Amino acid sequence: IALLSCTASAAASLALKVDGQAVVAQLMQLAQWSDDPAPAVTRLIYTDNDMKARAYVQQLMREAGLQVREDTMGNIYGRLAGTDPEGAAVATGSHTDAIPGAGAYDGTVGVIGGIAALRALGEAGFKPARPIEVVMFTSEEPTRFGLSCSGSRAMAGLLDSACLDTLRDVNGSTYLQAASAAGYGAASTAQMVAGARRTPADLAAFLELHIEQGPELEKEGLQIGIVTAIAAPAALRVRFSGDGGHAGAQLMPLRNDASLAAAELALLVEKTALGTGVVDTVATVGSWHIQPNAVNSVPREAALEIDVRDIDGPRRDGVLAAIKAEAAAIAARRKVRLAVETINQDPPAACGAQVVAAVEAAVREVGASSKRMVSRAYHDSLFMAQIAPTGMVFIPCRNGWSHRPDEFAAPDDIQRGIEVLALALAQLAGD
Amino acid sequence: IALLSCTASAAASLALKVDGQAVVAQLMQLAQWSDDPAPAVTRLIYTDNDMKARAYVQQLMREAGLQVREDTMGNIYGRLAGTDPEGAAVATGSHTDAIPGAGAYDGTVGVIGGIAALRALGEAGFKPARPIEVVMFTSEEPTRFGLSCSGSRAMAGLLDSACLDTLRDVNGSTYLQAASAAGYGAASTAQMVAGARRTPADLAAFLELHIEQGPELEKEGLQIGIVTAIAAPAALRVRFSGDGGHAGAQLMPLRNDASLAAAELALLVEKTALGTGVVDTVATVGSWHIQPNAVNSVPREAALEIDVRDIDGPRRDGVLAAIKAEAAAIAARRKVRLAVETINQDPPAACGAQVVAAVEAAVREVGASSKRMVSRAYHDSLFMAQIAPTGMVFIPCRNGWSHRPDEFAAPDDIQRGIEVLALALAQLAGD
Ligand SMILES: [Mn+2]
Ligand SMILES: [Mn+2]
Ligand SMILES: [Mn+2]
Ligand SMILES: [Mn+2]
Repeated sequence: IALLSCTASAAASLALKVDGQAVVAQLMQLAQWSDDPAPAVTRLIYTDNDMKARAYVQQLMREAGLQVREDTMGNIYGRLAGTDPEGAAVATGSHTDAIPGAGAYDGTVGVIGGIAALRALGEAGFKPARPIEVVMFTSEEPTRFGLSCSGSRAMAGLLDSACLDTLRDVNGSTYLQAASAAGYGAASTAQMVAGARRTPADLAAFLELHIEQGPELEKEGLQIGIVTAIAAPAALRVRFSGDGGHAGAQLMPLRNDASLAAAELALLVEKTALGTGVVDTVATVGSWHIQPNAVNSVPREAALEIDVRDIDGPRRDGVLAAIKAEAAAIAARRKVRLAVETINQDPPAACGAQVVAAVEAAVREVGASSKRMVSRAYHDSLFMAQIAPTGMVFIPCRNGWSHRPDEFAAPDDIQRGIEVLALALAQLAGD
Repeated sequence: IALLSCTASAAASLALKVDGQAVVAQLMQLAQWSDDPAPAVTRLIYTDNDMKARAYVQQLMREAGLQVREDTMGNIYGRLAGTDPEGAAVATGSHTDAIPGAGAYDGTVGVIGGIAALRALGEAGFKPARPIEVVMFTSEEPTRFGLSCSGSRAMAGLLDSACLDTLRDVNGSTYLQAASAAGYGAASTAQMVAGARRTPADLAAFLELHIEQGPELEKEGLQIGIVTAIAAPAALRVRFSGDGGHAGAQLMPLRNDASLAAAELALLVEKTALGTGVVDTVATVGSWHIQPNAVNSVPREAALEIDVRDIDGPRRDGVLAAIKAEAAAIAARRKVRLAVETINQDPPAACGAQVVAAVEAAVREVGASSKRMVSRAYHDSLFMAQIAPTGMVFIPCRNGWSHRPDEFAAPDDIQRGIEVLALALAQLAGD
């Protein structure tokens, strides 16, 4: 990867014009396709609104002069051709799916902004040696099938198709069925997953632009976060089962209420995360499913999904072990049955040194204030890092909020982030 | 109501034939119409399966020689004519709707069994003075709109149509919209509610056959429960709201996780109910709704529905007050917003002395073992008691279980309950 060691001179000579207002207007247009009323954005993969968002992304790619293609998983690529016919691609991108009641910026800034960056490079007459690609990844969010980053996992060869086949959405559909109904998919899940595969040989670098989803940049008055590592996430599924009964007739001493076991565990999860004494440990019971979930029935089943992250892998694994032990103790005490399943326990990712250097050079070039930082949220970058030197560019977001309707990033910050992204991509692609 | 003081001689002379096996077969047929796979029964009002169950109930009423009519709320009546043209009716009945994952006996025994009782009376050549009606009440369960006993509340003039208009199902439909789509309803909610109204003048007595939904009869080896009072139920809706955030990026000290406030309150509800030291106090957090309910989001909102019952009204109200106070304390401590709403706080009902006496006479006539007891579950009888002398006949159910797929009542117990019901109705109706 000798080309990566080129100087910043190529990029420095570019007269880049990024139209931040146009990008914001495109983000607002994208936010209209939502299953919940504005300002909330809810967009689950392969739904009608997702398909409309995908058509819009492809339209923007074409308007930016990019070659469009889709793969079997529904990842969408826009490509700026390179002058070196042998060159492995430099890629950017993010996601446009949104969890229920989310906002307009998470993921979308990296997709719409990535397209704007490639458009600006093309319009400035930049002829990259390597091709530059912008990717809209399929299903970064785990909403529909409980699995995050399905598009990037498949690209990196890290998606087990037998495991994917065991997942169902609320309608009982498999991933392959949902993808096929949307016009993607293949003859089998294995073929669908293999169809999205990229290799280190055809990918020289990956760089994602994203809102910070945390308060640090805003609090410190900084414009750009240069990500050096992505925190190690893990998720557990815990299911307590009791005997249920009628809320009026089942007397208190005879109950084994599954929801109360869940309540105890949720409070314990909080206590354990706080107990490390380190602010980098976070643990969340984000998903609760109670059965039969009727006011006049003692809960018979409580299924929790628990998310634990840390920038330190072993410390995070200690928290996971403590949660599992406590779940067993609660189940024994409350006489409920227990099933625990590890949904994922991915390793942390370190960013590529040359990618970080290209971002730092771009930050200097635009004269932005910045700091190096750790990403605490899940990103497709985590999986792209397994097959290519990877980095991330963060911009501030109001109050550190995301995954909520009032998520917000300022137009100036978005424009600056796109400029940094474009210059760094240009440097990584060479001329 | 002088006719109610007639002796049991009329009934005693009847050669009643109740076919318990046929009733069980009808119950099993009814259980087929379910939104969940057998043996679970899930039947929400006005759904396809509910409409099929309603058609079947009407068919059985016609086969039993009864005159069928429906009212604006969707209550279904089958009527055995009386010889006294001025006579107010004697009624029986129960419900066929079922909460998610329930069983085949709750409510249905009183509807199918009520039809069988009237059929047996007719076939025995009994000519009642008063007409006898069997009712399938609309929506005894609170599943679709959060309101229990909508049919019997409307009959008793205890359903506020302005309040009913504020309720929505998960699709955002009003009760009137859902009823109208099913072929019921009226030009307005007020007219729909008024259309179901019954008055003390046209209703002489009400008697409901039901499974016990508790373990007492089975444990004591008794065949019939003669209900003398129905426990006082109440329900609260508590909503905690926080700021949400990303499960990876939002650091623990900055969170105000609404689900953890809910978890604390749920444990407190249990503790408060146990704290009265009286086995008759029961309190349940049966319904949990967490938003956005995604594994990677800090819960922003947690809505709980809390059911509190007691045979002693003031003691129950003390538990309600303690729960409200604790919810406020938790909200202040965890810096979440709080909204508390009383869904219902109905008074306990005492059964009519003449109805209880008619049941006791019928129990003697069939030679059943029995005891007087209190009903701890909600029933349409609670509201019918506001406009007519009311009673209930309980039969044992296995382990006291209900609201679960393995709910079960033995065919012999069902047949005996129907015999007691028929004889008591005959006595109340006179000849
Ligand atoms: Mn997200
Ligand atoms: Mn994202
Ligand atoms: Mn019930
Ligand atoms: Mn019932």
